[in-house]
Amino acid sequence: MLHPVVLSGGSGSRLWPLSRHNQPKQFLALVGDRSLFQETVLRAGALPGMQPPVTVCSDGHRFMVGEQLQEIGVPNGGILLEPAARNTAPAIAIAALHVLASDPDATMLVMPADHLIEDESAFRTAVERAGALAKDGWLVTFGIHPDYAETGYGYIARGEPLENEGYRVGRFVEKPDLVTAESYVSDGTYAWNSGMFLFRAQAYLEELELQAPKILAAAKAAYAVAEGDLDFIRVGKDEFLSSPSDSIDYAVMERTERAALVPVSCGWSDIGSWSSLWSVAHRDDQGNFHEGDVISIDTTGSLVRASERRLIATIGVDDLVIVDTPDATLVARKDRVQDVKRVVEHLKDAGRQEHLFHRKVYRPWGNYDSIDMGARFQVKRIEVKPGASLSLQKHHKRAEHWVVVSGVAEVTCDDRVFDLHENESTFIPLGSVHRLRNRGTEPVELIEVQSGSYLGEDDIVRLEDVYGRS
Amino acid sequence: MLHPVVLSGGSGSRLWPLSRHNQPKQFLALVGDRSLFQETVLRAGALPGMQPPVTVCSDGHRFMVGEQLQEIGVPNGGILLEPAARNTAPAIAIAALHVLASDPDATMLVMPADHLIEDESAFRTAVERAGALAKDGWLVTFGIHPDYAETGYGYIARGEPLENEGYRVGRFVEKPDLVTAESYVSDGTYAWNSGMFLFRAQAYLEELELQAPKILAAAKAAYAVAEGDLDFIRVGKDEFLSSPSDSIDYAVMERTERAALVPVSCGWSDIGSWSSLWSVAHRDDQGNFHEGDVISIDTTGSLVRASERRLIATIGVDDLVIVDTPDATLVARKDRVQDVKRVVEHLKDAGRQEHLFHRKVYRPWGNYDSIDMGARFQVKRIEVKPGASLSLQKHHKRAEHWVVVSGVAEVTCDDRVFDLHENESTFIPLGSVHRLRNRGTEPVELIEVQSGSYLGEDDIVRLEDVYGRS
Repeated sequence: MLHPVVLSGGSGSRLWPLSRHNQPKQFLALVGDRSLFQETVLRAGALPGMQPPVTVCSDGHRFMVGEQLQEIGVPNGGILLEPAARNTAPAIAIAALHVLASDPDATMLVMPADHLIEDESAFRTAVERAGALAKDGWLVTFGIHPDYAETGYGYIARGEPLENEGYRVGRFVEKPDLVTAESYVSDGTYAWNSGMFLFRAQAYLEELELQAPKILAAAKAAYAVAEGDLDFIRVGKDEFLSSPSDSIDYAVMERTERAALVPVSCGWSDIGSWSSLWSVAHRDDQGNFHEGDVISIDTTGSLVRASERRLIATIGVDDLVIVDTPDATLVARKDRVQDVKRVVEHLKDAGRQEHLFHRKVYRPWGNYDSIDMGARFQVKRIEVKPGASLSLQKHHKRAEHWVVVSGVAEVTCDDRVFDLHENESTFIPLGSVHRLRNRGTEPVELIEVQSGSYLGEDDIVRLEDVYGRS
Repeated sequence: MLHPVVLSGGSGSRLWPLSRHNQPKQFLALVGDRSLFQETVLRAGALPGMQPPVTVCSDGHRFMVGEQLQEIGVPNGGILLEPAARNTAPAIAIAALHVLASDPDATMLVMPADHLIEDESAFRTAVERAGALAKDGWLVTFGIHPDYAETGYGYIARGEPLENEGYRVGRFVEKPDLVTAESYVSDGTYAWNSGMFLFRAQAYLEELELQAPKILAAAKAAYAVAEGDLDFIRVGKDEFLSSPSDSIDYAVMERTERAALVPVSCGWSDIGSWSSLWSVAHRDDQGNFHEGDVISIDTTGSLVRASERRLIATIGVDDLVIVDTPDATLVARKDRVQDVKRVVEHLKDAGRQEHLFHRKVYRPWGNYDSIDMGARFQVKRIEVKPGASLSLQKHHKRAEHWVVVSGVAEVTCDDRVFDLHENESTFIPLGSVHRLRNRGTEPVELIEVQSGSYLGEDDIVRLEDVYGRS
């Protein structure tokens, strides 16, 4: 059986300020209404005979993965939590062990969660060809037909032809300079390295044993002590961290004799930067891609994205990227967007938060948005999902006022439990043990006014938590 | 005696999005901590023998004028409210009538409220020279030495020399093309038309009678029925509106034989655009002028202004104007900022509000900021000044929750009157008659959560109001 394995461990900063550490690129709706992760899962699900998706992600993103799967109604084939990033080889290894546990003959379609594919039919044909090669024991990588001399991707040279329009892998080459990239494109036998693979799980583990036995040993040890935690599978931390950090390319594909290449031309992009998003977006006659409330005068070749309740007006500018979020706005020349990482470095060095979190923060129970802040107060808009519950908690430094503006909230405050309806409010005194819960079928929205001498997120004592955070 | 008359009637849109119809350029702190209006008043007040300032402004700006005068501790020589804009000749006429009412020998120093003067000592010398000429009956205009061939200003040509380093006015010329402007600058006898004047009030009215008797008649009729309204003087509406709309230049200065020119070089700018502000601002080594939280990488020649609680990051851009406010951000090429008015036109045509109001709205009692909004709720942060009181009011469509986060509020709700301290809240049911008041010496800050089917500002019935708005 064919198991999609979605690698969702990235925490890319190249799409800042929209992408943040706790909500990176793969979880954003960059093109259309669904996130790249959701598109990846649905694309795989549309292939014939596909099993529920296995996701490998970092611990900090687990609730987002769960929620995004739920949103699109896709059953969960396992959400494997990496205790820390160790690159793709160990991540794929634990996924292989996981699918083998229920399906000894499992085949895996490994896909990064943050890529775009426009031509799903071409992709499907390629997967079918790769599937046939995998049956014969090949470890297949998908090579993208290079439309132009991109210097930001690695390339793969074809070797001798195989059946099913595949090839042996000739060699992997690093990101080339422009002249080299041009020679690869005109040569016609090079493909972009897409980071997508298809192979029998057993074949991958066998090659790992040959080429990188330490990685396999660490993955086996980590998976052997894995524990279920709600919908998640938490592998052994120390065991996993003992693995060398290496990519599947370096650890296996460049070394094995069983590496095959299936070329495909499927409108693929890794959306590695704002200019890359601009180049795949549906632009208007002036070459602009606008999202949100934008007034654009004599503007060309630009990507402009306004956030909710905000207007962006542009006059006489060309080839800019303007990305607006509630707490930060980027204005960059389109051919300089690779330097977004310098802004992120600057934020890190300054001990700031704008690279880590959005103003709106997602939690397993819903989300909150810090809509205002003063010397001794903070105002949050809180949304609690149907059926969800915040932890039973208390604060040492702040009291809270809650005003329900939508839905019905069940409030626990010390000994009392009561419902709070739209247009009703309550007061949570400093030190009182409280909980907020949504028993209904509609989201609860409420405004929380915090008042106190210290208002940091770390002033919280969790006494009970359905999400295992206490 | 010398009376400063500050013309504050402008509602300029050229500095949008910072400048809005209800808070135009003259009330903004564009350079330093004080508004241009405040700087203008203080500059005049620093001159010897100066009386309290007379301000002419539109009805909608009266509380802002009052508050800004109070902030800088300047006594009020009269705030004359124009029922509608009729250009400068009628505005100066009612100011002349006003100063003559208490001082039959009054001399007026007329200044637009929204100009910048860097060299106050040079300005002072020019005012002294103009004062001497005014004593002899001259109507003096100040001509700014042209530093460069500006095509955005009118020019004045000198005529024959007079005493006190003044000249007769040769002629007024409209905004020239670049070649003409260059010839004016090299000629050496042309000056920029600054819009500042000095003359005896009686002399102005005499010339108005000769050159534009309809304007004088309308101003006299309007001032004759003027009524005091708190700190404000409200002239007769119909009478004022019957005046032709004309500038002092056209109506008087271009026609009279008594027009004199005093040249001055005093670092003057009308800050007529964002590029003009950039050119007078203190820029860094890269030619950038930053305000607020800005991270700038390889950026040159740009004006970047971030609003509170927001970060702007720029990468690889040159010669841009980036002006951020809580609800709208402008990104324009610096040499295209004259087209800001096209954005404002667009907003007008679309029936929007972003050219009229900021998200934070100033009221006589303080201000409110709409910090969040949803389908059936709105959240406002409200600040009530010490000693101030909102109107006694009720709403037909909404209930309100108030949470005090700073200071002590006196709350009236139907029959009850009670104090609400920091971290206390109350509920104002739909239809109840209520009032919010600050009896204390510190500002009251509170969070208001409105809940209801309609949340527009026009759902208000004012039963009593200390500011005469009921």
